[in-house]
Amino acid sequence: MSEGIGELLPPERLMLTPGPSCVDPRVYRAMAAPIVGHMDPWFTAMMDDVQVLMRRVFQTRNRVTFPISASGSGGIEAAVANALESGDECIVCVNGAFSERMAIIAERIPAKVIRVEAPYGRTVDPQDVVRAGKGKKIKFVGLTHGETSSGIVQRIEDYRKAADELGALLIVDTVATLGGVPLDVDGQRIDICFSGAQKAISAPPGMAPITVNERVEKYMETRKEPVRSWYFDLHPAMTYWGKDRLYHHTPPITLIYGMREALRLVLEEGLEARWERHALCQQALIAGLEAMNLEMLVKNAAERLITVTAVNIPSGLNEKTARKQLLDEFNIEIAGGLGPLAGKIWRIGLMGYSCQTWNVLRFLASLEKVLLDQGLRVPTGAGVGAAIHAFREAMQPAGAGARK
Amino acid sequence: MSEGIGELLPPERLMLTPGPSCVDPRVYRAMAAPIVGHMDPWFTAMMDDVQVLMRRVFQTRNRVTFPISASGSGGIEAAVANALESGDECIVCVNGAFSERMAIIAERIPAKVIRVEAPYGRTVDPQDVVRAGKGKKIKFVGLTHGETSSGIVQRIEDYRKAADELGALLIVDTVATLGGVPLDVDGQRIDICFSGAQKAISAPPGMAPITVNERVEKYMETRKEPVRSWYFDLHPAMTYWGKDRLYHHTPPITLIYGMREALRLVLEEGLEARWERHALCQQALIAGLEAMNLEMLVKNAAERLITVTAVNIPSGLNEKTARKQLLDEFNIEIAGGLGPLAGKIWRIGLMGYSCQTWNVLRFLASLEKVLLDQGLRVPTGAGVGAAIHAFREAMQPAGAGARK
Repeated sequence: MSEGIGELLPPERLMLTPGPSCVDPRVYRAMAAPIVGHMDPWFTAMMDDVQVLMRRVFQTRNRVTFPISASGSGGIEAAVANALESGDECIVCVNGAFSERMAIIAERIPAKVIRVEAPYGRTVDPQDVVRAGKGKKIKFVGLTHGETSSGIVQRIEDYRKAADELGALLIVDTVATLGGVPLDVDGQRIDICFSGAQKAISAPPGMAPITVNERVEKYMETRKEPVRSWYFDLHPAMTYWGKDRLYHHTPPITLIYGMREALRLVLEEGLEARWERHALCQQALIAGLEAMNLEMLVKNAAERLITVTAVNIPSGLNEKTARKQLLDEFNIEIAGGLGPLAGKIWRIGLMGYSCQTWNVLRFLASLEKVLLDQGLRVPTGAGVGAAIHAFREAMQPAGAGARK
Repeated sequence: MSEGIGELLPPERLMLTPGPSCVDPRVYRAMAAPIVGHMDPWFTAMMDDVQVLMRRVFQTRNRVTFPISASGSGGIEAAVANALESGDECIVCVNGAFSERMAIIAERIPAKVIRVEAPYGRTVDPQDVVRAGKGKKIKFVGLTHGETSSGIVQRIEDYRKAADELGALLIVDTVATLGGVPLDVDGQRIDICFSGAQKAISAPPGMAPITVNERVEKYMETRKEPVRSWYFDLHPAMTYWGKDRLYHHTPPITLIYGMREALRLVLEEGLEARWERHALCQQALIAGLEAMNLEMLVKNAAERLITVTAVNIPSGLNEKTARKQLLDEFNIEIAGGLGPLAGKIWRIGLMGYSCQTWNVLRFLASLEKVLLDQGLRVPTGAGVGAAIHAFREAMQPAGAGARK
């Protein structure tokens, strides 16, 4: 009865998209371990380990820190639904598809959502946030740290200050940044911070790490209205992840195994070393792309998201054909644009296990052939050459500058 | 920085709980395959395969048939949230923890929920449903096909009839039954049917198969109010799973690989053969338990859920100590009771890959030692003997009855 649907034989892709990233073989190996029950004492002890690791990666001492049993978008819903009661007012900084998503989810509570907007590819002005919320009772300011739809990163400190001026909570979406871009939940005083498994953490998709501070925990205990979503209600979920171990729902055991190993890998490398690796690979990527006469969407280098690079598609290029060739001929996947940027940009992710010097070179070399095949003028070897130069500059021993 | 948290080394448990079940090595192997992107043409073609397989297992031609990216409880929320708008009235048949959960989730929409109740371990009277809904505008009747909290199964046809009398939709939770107990979504005219991955389907937890008929699909297109949950909104999720392939959220690629292989295994065995295997193993289990002087919670054999057997804990037994011994000494996990049945029953699951003749024998033999160690009188070998007898009766060739 399953005729025609045979053995699973996926191709071996290099995912240079805004997620999912490639996964370290150690994570696959961990996930191949037989599952146990979700109330098994061995498992609940293992959950503690995951929480210890996750706190280190988030840089927080928050008790409520655990992976939600859903994708990153489920993390948005959990953050927003636990912070809001119907009729509450909140501000969402909207400058891309994922910040827009946060606004839409908040509206469904239903809450009054004030969108403080900037064009895709630009940061939201924190002063606009203060102006928009003045005199109002704003429950939270919602920020997307790294907007993968446009390759923008925003300075959390600036929005923390704005939220403080309004007496509001700060919710930060770090789906595209945790583990790849500097982040310090306690140091930056983020009230609710969530992420995704499948980006710079490099576990398979399906879990959303979240952390919530004491201020929010206290609020959750005194809400007048239940959280709209039972599944995303953090209070009972945390009684399961917390010391009471009361059953809430069956979590994805296999993905928790994978999350544990992925977090171990992050910490074995070290957060700072990992951030540096991501920064270096992007520098080399951009050097290579610019040497091939491609232009970045985000002009201000300080506002570029390290993990996802948005590059303008050169005129005269059939972008879908080009991406198809990259996939079919070189097994490399990159992403197109979303919403108003569809057809206008490519989004190249370098995250987690995908983010390696050799992958940057493989991509630039492959892209060179694709651009040439489409009739574009590309200086031979210039992309790869510029990237190699960037790597050599960064990697040579101190004091060896004269030899470059 | 991950010091003290070493290699993942889970014990090899035999899960005889109401889920998760043990997982076939073929499913682990499928999940060890490298992930690809969720927009990769190879992956979207593979999603079609999963849907074809899932329709066969649900026995439906419904277009909207796919796995939700959440555990079985997320399936409840998706079913309920897509069927309801705020202020709607619905009926939920409540006779256990999971049907109670459906009622709680519906109340959070917020909707008016009429609970038609029966004690744990009893079926809800379909006439009570009709009486409770008479003269009211009932949006749906919600039924938990197999209540794992008490080991009860309910006849879908009876509640379909009741829902028809009220002009209501029928939502059926088949988390504990799909793939283990006869079910025919189209034949039984179920409007919304959902399940879980980790029970008789025997994939790891983390996905909730759902199927929705045309009547519901049409309703979803004409709703006045958006679905309260963005994550569980079936309409955009289905544009991703449907032919449009528009991105909604990143699904758990690895779990979809596992789901595909688990569904293939279900269909290779054949639905009827699989139902028979589950029925046979439970017969043998019950024969064994009764031979050891244990009593079933559900007296009416026709109302017993085939996949989860609820057995009364004998007096004089420390049930937690007994379960701990089963786990520590024999690597077998069974479950205790929930809610009003906590401390009063054990729940023994025989589902999917866990449901094997040899596991029944291993469990009964292990339990005999545990009961003896606690000072209970158990006729030596009676449990195993009775189970073997049940297997021999069922397995002998036709016409060989005289030799038994």
